[in-house]
Amino acid sequence: MASEQPKEVPTDPALAPPAEGAAAGEAGEGAAAQSKKGAKKAEAKAKKEAEKARKAAEREAAAATQSAAAQEDHAKENYGDIPKDKKIESAYVMLRDVSEEHIGKTIKLRGWIQNARMQGAKMAFLELREEGAWTVQGVVAASPEGKPVSKQMVKWIGALKLESFVALEATVQKPLEPVKSCKVSLYELHLTKVYLVAPAPEMLSLGLAAAGRAVSNLEDEAVGEGVEKAVENLSIAGAPGASLATHLNNPAMHKRAPISQAIADIRIAVEDYFCEYLKARRFKRFHPPSLIGAASEGGANVFAMNYFDKQAYLAQSPQFYKQFEIAGGRKRVFCVHPVFRAENSNTPRHMTEFMGLDMEMEIEEHYHEVLKMLEGVFIYIFSKLAVEFKEEIELIRSVYPSEEFLLPESGKEVRLTFAEGQALLRAEGPPEFANVSDDEDMTTAQEKALGALIRKKYKSDFYVLDKFPVDARPFYAMPDPENPKVTNAYDFMMRGQEILSGGQRLHLPHELEATIRAKGLDPNQPGLKEYVDVFRSVGVPPHGGGGIGLDRVIAWYLNLPSVQLVADYPRTPKRLGP
Amino acid sequence: MASEQPKEVPTDPALAPPAEGAAAGEAGEGAAAQSKKGAKKAEAKAKKEAEKARKAAEREAAAATQSAAAQEDHAKENYGDIPKDKKIESAYVMLRDVSEEHIGKTIKLRGWIQNARMQGAKMAFLELREEGAWTVQGVVAASPEGKPVSKQMVKWIGALKLESFVALEATVQKPLEPVKSCKVSLYELHLTKVYLVAPAPEMLSLGLAAAGRAVSNLEDEAVGEGVEKAVENLSIAGAPGASLATHLNNPAMHKRAPISQAIADIRIAVEDYFCEYLKARRFKRFHPPSLIGAASEGGANVFAMNYFDKQAYLAQSPQFYKQFEIAGGRKRVFCVHPVFRAENSNTPRHMTEFMGLDMEMEIEEHYHEVLKMLEGVFIYIFSKLAVEFKEEIELIRSVYPSEEFLLPESGKEVRLTFAEGQALLRAEGPPEFANVSDDEDMTTAQEKALGALIRKKYKSDFYVLDKFPVDARPFYAMPDPENPKVTNAYDFMMRGQEILSGGQRLHLPHELEATIRAKGLDPNQPGLKEYVDVFRSVGVPPHGGGGIGLDRVIAWYLNLPSVQLVADYPRTPKRLGP
Repeated sequence: MASEQPKEVPTDPALAPPAEGAAAGEAGEGAAAQSKKGAKKAEAKAKKEAEKARKAAEREAAAATQSAAAQEDHAKENYGDIPKDKKIESAYVMLRDVSEEHIGKTIKLRGWIQNARMQGAKMAFLELREEGAWTVQGVVAASPEGKPVSKQMVKWIGALKLESFVALEATVQKPLEPVKSCKVSLYELHLTKVYLVAPAPEMLSLGLAAAGRAVSNLEDEAVGEGVEKAVENLSIAGAPGASLATHLNNPAMHKRAPISQAIADIRIAVEDYFCEYLKARRFKRFHPPSLIGAASEGGANVFAMNYFDKQAYLAQSPQFYKQFEIAGGRKRVFCVHPVFRAENSNTPRHMTEFMGLDMEMEIEEHYHEVLKMLEGVFIYIFSKLAVEFKEEIELIRSVYPSEEFLLPESGKEVRLTFAEGQALLRAEGPPEFANVSDDEDMTTAQEKALGALIRKKYKSDFYVLDKFPVDARPFYAMPDPENPKVTNAYDFMMRGQEILSGGQRLHLPHELEATIRAKGLDPNQPGLKEYVDVFRSVGVPPHGGGGIGLDRVIAWYLNLPSVQLVADYPRTPKRLGP
Repeated sequence: MASEQPKEVPTDPALAPPAEGAAAGEAGEGAAAQSKKGAKKAEAKAKKEAEKARKAAEREAAAATQSAAAQEDHAKENYGDIPKDKKIESAYVMLRDVSEEHIGKTIKLRGWIQNARMQGAKMAFLELREEGAWTVQGVVAASPEGKPVSKQMVKWIGALKLESFVALEATVQKPLEPVKSCKVSLYELHLTKVYLVAPAPEMLSLGLAAAGRAVSNLEDEAVGEGVEKAVENLSIAGAPGASLATHLNNPAMHKRAPISQAIADIRIAVEDYFCEYLKARRFKRFHPPSLIGAASEGGANVFAMNYFDKQAYLAQSPQFYKQFEIAGGRKRVFCVHPVFRAENSNTPRHMTEFMGLDMEMEIEEHYHEVLKMLEGVFIYIFSKLAVEFKEEIELIRSVYPSEEFLLPESGKEVRLTFAEGQALLRAEGPPEFANVSDDEDMTTAQEKALGALIRKKYKSDFYVLDKFPVDARPFYAMPDPENPKVTNAYDFMMRGQEILSGGQRLHLPHELEATIRAKGLDPNQPGLKEYVDVFRSVGVPPHGGGGIGLDRVIAWYLNLPSVQLVADYPRTPKRLGP
């Protein structure tokens, strides 16, 4: 319909969208500065100013109330705290569902006050927000007696605190011109009732605008590249952001920011895509335990606790359990489960608890069946994201800039052996990597340098390194039958950073025992015995798999400065709450 | 096609299915008896006999090998350990996919030896099993030189150890009559190659037949009804089963039993149905943390551990976090996550770690919106199960008998207030419940008695108890605005046992503070402060939800004697492994 896109018309100042950040309650948000001292000073100043503004507003409000009280309020039933015994009878419509058919109709809506301000003495504007950053403009003007809106009501609406939750009744109308500041730009609400369901406090510790900007600094001082990137992004975004700590200490406001909702929606999608791709290929879900009886993969980096009369530990991976599922007669399994690392690593890549996406499958002839399955998973995830989350990715890029994530053409997946990767580094990498060895694992710096070389050479940010050296892999890795110095094991990489580790596992008990002994361990020690026993107890087919760190996939894909911006409730050596 | 169902024909003894349990390796499995002493004696005896049988078999095999060695083996390429450099070239077909079109064709299959035996000197039978208890009969007969099968090959196949994993090549044929002992009964395999991929040991600690029978006793001595039921079921099943401990200590064999696969498949489905019902209604998934910084819901029953320089605890529920999601701008959320209880309860209902299915949603007008949503979830789950898992449920019932799970007609959901439930108990329940109070929580015995009364009266095994007394609910429960002695909180019940607890939560900080104080706690103490702070920091709309114990839903639905038969890796005060 032609009428859906109103033509440009001269702006009526009375109907202009409210100025951004003009309302009270946002004062504290811009205070976080890059240096600690500066930040504190700025914060103190901002607080003082906010307090001043607040008091002035209070005085004004009190005066307004007094003068308003002088008049009779003919609309007092139509606003205020939500009445316990009454409800708005009109049909409830979610913002995303408001359409042409609602024009002229009276509907009910619910949401947060994203902005509210007076326009003169008789008119007020607000912005109402709903999940997913859906926003709409509401307008209200005092009418003569008998009509639903009074002067007092307008004043009350104009003074609503940001992030309060309201229920309202309104008639849907077309604005004179699209409301550019709102996601629902083609409709506006003419308010007839506004009830306060849950008030916000006088002052927010983190305002929505700040919550939507890049973080000003990460949790730890010594995070290297992450911090630089964040600071760099900050200067691009052009306005000071709050620190990551401020974000995480204010979970409600952090999560309400459109960028946080977009990241969370992408995280959900990645998990869903992983599951649906595997389920369509006859993989079955299972749940590994978190509590285990012995620190099976070595005593380091394991959380231990008293467990009645015993000790218990938190599982560092579902590795043994997904193999037990294969031994237990499942051809293909996957799980989505928290894993725990008691590692005192304070970097933008590490958390002490994170979601693992794991899979394991029978091998028919060759372990590349597994490798190809996992490549398929990732290509599926990345391809779907680029299509289904275009808008969200753009929004996130506007805050945290990133280059397009390059994917190989189908059939041209990039697979290098570990040795080929090292050779490329030696030949074309920075001079400090001119002598890297084929027998030792890569450092993070080497990985990143290789990632850059591969992007240049193969035009892909996603690739596989195969055939890792024996010393870089755990005891259960299957050695290459043709070269005992390497294993049938691989890492998957994104932008030069590992996001999956996997490979073929030993499935014959005598081979397992031999490699356990070769690593200086005893196949009958607690934690290992019950593992090896499973392979001693029945015939177990050849199998392999891989484990993915969910938060990292999203962080590297979007080039975010920290995995803590992806996890719902990140846990690090320094952070256990909220 | 008429030819699909072969007519009854006189049985050719040479082609009769092998006798059940006739092969070696099953000897130890029937030994677990009901009393400990008897069990040990029987076990010892069985072991002795098995050992005797094994030795006899070894002598026989050795003799056979000797005499066979005398002859040239013209088929030696077609059997034995799987050759490293060779593979079966025929197309791989999964058992469930074998169909009419394969008749006369040569295919490749892979699976476990479920049975193998000689029929005279020149013929052997085997049963091959694949995931999901798909089985098929294979037959092999020695042929003259030049053909793919030799006498030696037949002997080798007839002596294959149960639960070994093999790869084989065979021609698909129609048997003279359906092979009743196999799930794939209309086809049989004429074996041309059989390679051993992973051998099973001489003797299984738990045979497949025993793994498929009812457990003879549960893990703990003092489990009351559960044990009785198990023993009762055992006598119905007619053959002695192994103890639950034997099952769980032999995860590979326990999981390979068709009944275990059926239970696991139903568990997967219940989780999937829960998620898909909610996702279709705009619920969004999130992941709560397992590690938390304070024992938020009181210090009892919480696992504690050292966490770098602090203490950490394992979350007893995602309660606070799903509320944070609502505060964070999500309208509706759900999660599937492990929860932990450090409770020294050794019953068939308790585990220290279990999967929780949780949801939380905004309330528009009344908390019964949540209650109805949750009723919808369960009705959806139960209705789908009855249709999609008819076969699995029948199989499970043949081992653990249960009455049909009665559901209310749509629109006639059974909802009683807690007080109505107590009144029913007083009026029509057993005499010991003639004086139960409306102000105190029900005991498990009361719940079960009420469940029986409701089944009789309302013809439903699924019902809701609403309006629990204040003293039976945590501080965050919303009191009934009309009766301050009760709350807007409910339990969902199956066969007289609780499977969900939920209700409306307080969303205004001053009300939260008041109820926390009324419970004798301080709203600013560690663990509570960060919770209340979220409600102080922004306006949070009214909301409610519920939490479901996944394993219990399945255990009660199927009337299993213990939730430990549902969990993939059950954890109890006494069990931390495997």
